[in-house]
Amino acid sequence: MRIVVPAGGIGGARFLRGLKATLGIVAGQDSDSTITVIGNTGDDITLFGLRVCPDLDTVMYTLGGGINEDQGWGRDDESFTVKEELLAYGMQPDWFGLGDRDVATHIVRSQMLAAGYPLSAVTEALCDRWRPGVRLIPMTDDQVETHVVVEEGGKRRALHFQEWWIRHRAALPALSIVGVGADEARPAPGVLEAIREADAVLLPPSNPVVSIGSILGVAGIREALEQAVVVGVSPIIGDAPVRGMADACLTAIGVETSARAVAEHYGPRLLDGWLVDEADAGAEADGIEVVSRPLYMSGPKATADIARAALDLALDLKERRG
Amino acid sequence: MRIVVPAGGIGGARFLRGLKATLGIVAGQDSDSTITVIGNTGDDITLFGLRVCPDLDTVMYTLGGGINEDQGWGRDDESFTVKEELLAYGMQPDWFGLGDRDVATHIVRSQMLAAGYPLSAVTEALCDRWRPGVRLIPMTDDQVETHVVVEEGGKRRALHFQEWWIRHRAALPALSIVGVGADEARPAPGVLEAIREADAVLLPPSNPVVSIGSILGVAGIREALEQAVVVGVSPIIGDAPVRGMADACLTAIGVETSARAVAEHYGPRLLDGWLVDEADAGAEADGIEVVSRPLYMSGPKATADIARAALDLALDLKERRG
Repeated sequence: MRIVVPAGGIGGARFLRGLKATLGIVAGQDSDSTITVIGNTGDDITLFGLRVCPDLDTVMYTLGGGINEDQGWGRDDESFTVKEELLAYGMQPDWFGLGDRDVATHIVRSQMLAAGYPLSAVTEALCDRWRPGVRLIPMTDDQVETHVVVEEGGKRRALHFQEWWIRHRAALPALSIVGVGADEARPAPGVLEAIREADAVLLPPSNPVVSIGSILGVAGIREALEQAVVVGVSPIIGDAPVRGMADACLTAIGVETSARAVAEHYGPRLLDGWLVDEADAGAEADGIEVVSRPLYMSGPKATADIARAALDLALDLKERRG
Repeated sequence: MRIVVPAGGIGGARFLRGLKATLGIVAGQDSDSTITVIGNTGDDITLFGLRVCPDLDTVMYTLGGGINEDQGWGRDDESFTVKEELLAYGMQPDWFGLGDRDVATHIVRSQMLAAGYPLSAVTEALCDRWRPGVRLIPMTDDQVETHVVVEEGGKRRALHFQEWWIRHRAALPALSIVGVGADEARPAPGVLEAIREADAVLLPPSNPVVSIGSILGVAGIREALEQAVVVGVSPIIGDAPVRGMADACLTAIGVETSARAVAEHYGPRLLDGWLVDEADAGAEADGIEVVSRPLYMSGPKATADIARAALDLALDLKERRG
């Protein structure tokens, strides 16, 4: 079975771990199933001359066994010597959690990019070490940067998404969220092919605006997904995001923070099925098959069950479609 | 008093600490004396995309209080997490001691260089933190790389100096040592002016080939020094280098490992005075005033005494010259 998962960071990575478990995929062992992850790169940022890809790394570390489980991002057993020293030199920014182990990843990536390798090849090389058990492809090899337009003191300015998200904790009201470069970006090699050949596409409960939305913004990806069987897992339970600050992003683009509103935002051309939590049982969206079940990824078992439910719904819809 | 010191790494840095002490120079306090250090950059190397300047950093860390005193190079209280992670990614080389604190220095430097700042401006910026109490200028803003030509199995090849020095511990017999780029390199801003205005130039017991020799190789520096009063401190005591593997370098350029031979290698046009150890009392060199005294830099006091003796000899020679 060939499954494609467009994914952001923590939520996407944990969902993928559940999906691997339910499919019995173990790194280094042959499997009948393959998972291709289309990773969001809109959050990528260059810090101190180093190229940082937070979402790709979160997926890679989580599936490769190197993640800090408690915080959900960054390396396990991490130290922050380099960051402290950079601060001692007066280097900014100081609000990004750049650990020593993590820095090595960025050094390898930056060196390979400087040598002319595209990000997709760099990501593949990094995954040679981590063996995540999935094929991890960045959404694009071109540069797309999510910027957030805010208004302060009557003046509008655009911030890099990371500055808005981490430094300001999404507390500055966003007027709009823009994927700078998305229109000109082309999907990375393998992305469209994987979607075309997929038995199912599953949208994890990643941020619908700055993670999934960013991927959908790359010219050609949404159109390809519209031809596939796509089932999403709602990132909203009740009226709140399961984790993160997705509500701030939804508000910025004028979408209500509810499971139903997110499904309608994705729309029936993209979405065939939609998993909502039992708290949202009864939610409906025109042209989308909505199924309710427990959606809290409270542990490995619960997460695998969610992934299985999404996959089963997708396969069921595929069969019904003929 | 204005003193210029062309310097390599450990030996140069320790000598400079003694010179500061004897002149009563304390960082942050006004002093009648200024020391301009012309730092060797022939050892510089790019590792993992980061620009590393071992000699500049050794001077900066030593005089700024951040050096690992036991080994004489690198940062105090150092860890090697980044290096271990780079190795886990299969990155080479593995023979260079790149500590986490040190990495931050290289990140700052690399970022500034990439932004277009010359190395001299970058070095000044790094020294804003370290306050070494001297003006530290790289010998050149241009790239000069010391390469060592060796013969193995009948084939000649050129190695970067660091590979020969650290990886092979100078054990591969060197056929020649070449400063690649030296002919086209220009002295960094301030170098020639400092020499011209110097009351004395002191050569610390740095490696005469790959440290001092590298600096002398930059077009214009030797000529400027020949107009100044220059006193050197022999890096050779008896028939052995005080530290390091200077003998391997001297052999490569056909110079005997002795205090006298090094003085003659520098020559009377460059050198006005030469301090040798008491073990070498009686050594003579045509046209050079040779003075013997204890030269082991066994501690702060002994080192300050050596610096004072070199300075006194230079001032004495200057006065005698008129």
